[in-house]
Amino acid sequence: MTKTLAEIAQILNNSNNIYILTHRSPDGDTLGSGYGLCLALQKMHKNAKVLNSDNISKNFLFMKEYVIEQEFEPELIVSVDLADTILLGEKLSVYKDKIDICIDHHKSRYEFAPINYIEPDSAATTEIIYLLLTEMHIEITRDIANCLYTGLATDTGCFKYNNTTVRSFLIASSLMNLGAECSKINRIMFDTKSRERLELEKTVLQNIKFYYNNKVAVVYYTKNMVEEIGATDDDTAGIASIPNQIEGVLVGVTMKEDKERSGYKISLRSSGSVDVSKICETFGGGGHKNASGAFIGKPLEEARETIIAEIGKQLELY
Amino acid sequence: MTKTLAEIAQILNNSNNIYILTHRSPDGDTLGSGYGLCLALQKMHKNAKVLNSDNISKNFLFMKEYVIEQEFEPELIVSVDLADTILLGEKLSVYKDKIDICIDHHKSRYEFAPINYIEPDSAATTEIIYLLLTEMHIEITRDIANCLYTGLATDTGCFKYNNTTVRSFLIASSLMNLGAECSKINRIMFDTKSRERLELEKTVLQNIKFYYNNKVAVVYYTKNMVEEIGATDDDTAGIASIPNQIEGVLVGVTMKEDKERSGYKISLRSSGSVDVSKICETFGGGGHKNASGAFIGKPLEEARETIIAEIGKQLELY
Repeated sequence: MTKTLAEIAQILNNSNNIYILTHRSPDGDTLGSGYGLCLALQKMHKNAKVLNSDNISKNFLFMKEYVIEQEFEPELIVSVDLADTILLGEKLSVYKDKIDICIDHHKSRYEFAPINYIEPDSAATTEIIYLLLTEMHIEITRDIANCLYTGLATDTGCFKYNNTTVRSFLIASSLMNLGAECSKINRIMFDTKSRERLELEKTVLQNIKFYYNNKVAVVYYTKNMVEEIGATDDDTAGIASIPNQIEGVLVGVTMKEDKERSGYKISLRSSGSVDVSKICETFGGGGHKNASGAFIGKPLEEARETIIAEIGKQLELY
Repeated sequence: MTKTLAEIAQILNNSNNIYILTHRSPDGDTLGSGYGLCLALQKMHKNAKVLNSDNISKNFLFMKEYVIEQEFEPELIVSVDLADTILLGEKLSVYKDKIDICIDHHKSRYEFAPINYIEPDSAATTEIIYLLLTEMHIEITRDIANCLYTGLATDTGCFKYNNTTVRSFLIASSLMNLGAECSKINRIMFDTKSRERLELEKTVLQNIKFYYNNKVAVVYYTKNMVEEIGATDDDTAGIASIPNQIEGVLVGVTMKEDKERSGYKISLRSSGSVDVSKICETFGGGGHKNASGAFIGKPLEEARETIIAEIGKQLELY
C-alpha cells in the first residue's frame, strides 16, 4: 500500500525501536538515507540503527561515525533505496519478509513491504528523506545535512546527470544553508583518485580500441591486471564511464574479466539516442537505455568481436 | 563608483546601442554573461553585440548562434567577467579606456570603469547577470537560461568547487525551471573528452612522478608532445587538475613547456591548507591559495628539481 509521507512520518513518530536496512554494496544514497534518518530518530531519543550487508567504502565511513551504536529488538523495519529484497545482500536476507516500510526512488521495482513510499522522479532517496524529516518537524542538523547531501550529490554525479531536477537544486540549497559541508564532501566523492585507480585508468587507456569510424570505444581489464595493481572494488567503480566520455563516441564498452565464469562482464554506456539495453538483452542482460550490462562467456578477443558485431547491428538503425 | 544593480538596470534600460566585452580566451562565464545579457537586450529591441578578442572554443559556440549579428556604433560599453583591462586581449584593447560599466565577480582587481558592480562572493558573473535581468523585469527565455547556466556550471565545476553558494543552487534551480537544458550542457562541458585530450592524459599519466612520501605529484608535457598529438588549447585546459586529484597528494604540479622562453610554466594545485601561492611567489608568480602559477626558465629536469625543492620547504610548515 502506498502511504503519504505524512502517514509515514506518523508511523515513525509512534515507533521507538527502528531498524533501517540499506542495499548491498552500499552507495552514497542508501547510506546517506540510512544514516540521515537514523541520526534524526536518535535525536528524537528513539532506538535506531542502520544495518548493512557489506562493508562501507572508506569514503562513506564518516556517516557511520555520526550515530550511536545501539542494541535492541526492532518494532519497525524500514528499507531505504532498496529496489528489490534480493539486493539486501546475504547478511540482511533474513529480513526480506520483515520490512514494514519501503522508501525508495527506483523505477523498476516490485512492492515487497506493506507500506511503500516510492518516488521515481526523485534524483536520490535522500531527497525523500529530506522531505520526510521536514514532515516530521525534525531539525536537520549539520551532520544530517551532510548525510542527505552525500546521497544527493553522489546519485546525481554532483548535479551533472539528467536525473537532477529543480527540486534537487532547491534541496541542495537548503542542505548547504543548514550547514552541509558540500565542498569537502565533493572533494572526497568526485576529486580524489587512489593510486590504484590511477594505475587502472592508465592500463585501460593503453588498451582502448575504436571501431565503426570511432563511434564505439572499447576498454578491458583482466583479473590479473586488477590483482597486480592491487585495485579494490572502489577503484574499479566508474571505469565503465571512461570510453563513453570520448568525443564522437556513441557507445562506450568496458569489459571486465570474470575468471570464475570464464568470460567478460560487459558494461555499455551510451549518450543520446542509442539504446544499449537492447544490445545487452540479446546476451541475456539488460538495464537502462544509456547504461546496461551483460555477460559473454568467451575469451577476450572473441568476446570483444561478439559485442562489437552486435553493436554494429544496432548502430545501423541510427 | 559602485552602483546598485537597480541603477545599472536603469542605465541599460535607457541605452539603445550596447557593446558587451568579454575577456581573452573566453570561458563559459564571460561568454554566458555576455550572450545572456546581449540576448536580453536584443529582446528589448535594442542594438547589442558581444565582442571577443579570441575565437570561441567549440563547446561555447552555441551561445553565439542565439544572437543576431548587428552593426552599430556603441553608446554604452559594458565588460563582463573582466578583472583587468589587460585581459581584454589584443583585439579589444582599443576599448580599454572606454568601458562604461564593469560587471564582475573577481576578488583581486582594480576599478577601470566609472560604474562598477563587483560581487566577489558570486560564484559566477552569470549569477549577477541573472539578478540584473530580474531587476530589469526581463523574461528569461530558455536560450538566456542556457547561457547563464553555462557560466554558473563551468565556474563552479558543476557545483563541485567551494565557490558554490546557497544562492548558486537557488539560481540553478530557477534556470532549470526556466527551461535551461542542464544535462545537455553538462554533458558537453564535463563529460566529453576529445581524442587528443585523451592522448594527452595518457601521456602525462605515463610520466607522473611522486615525491615526499607521495604528498607531491608532478606531471609535464612538452611542445613536441602537444604537436605530435595535435592537441589544442582546449585540450590542455584542466590538465593541471590531474595530479592534485590523487589520494594523499597535497600539492599537484603540472609543468608545461614554453619553448619560446626556454623553460616551463608551472601550475600548482593544492587542497586544504597548503598555500601554493607562496611557493609561486618565490619564482615571481602567484595566484590563489589552492591554485597558482609561475615560470621557471630551466630545462625539464632542473625545473622539476627547483620546484620540488621549494615545495619541500613549504611542506615542512605543515
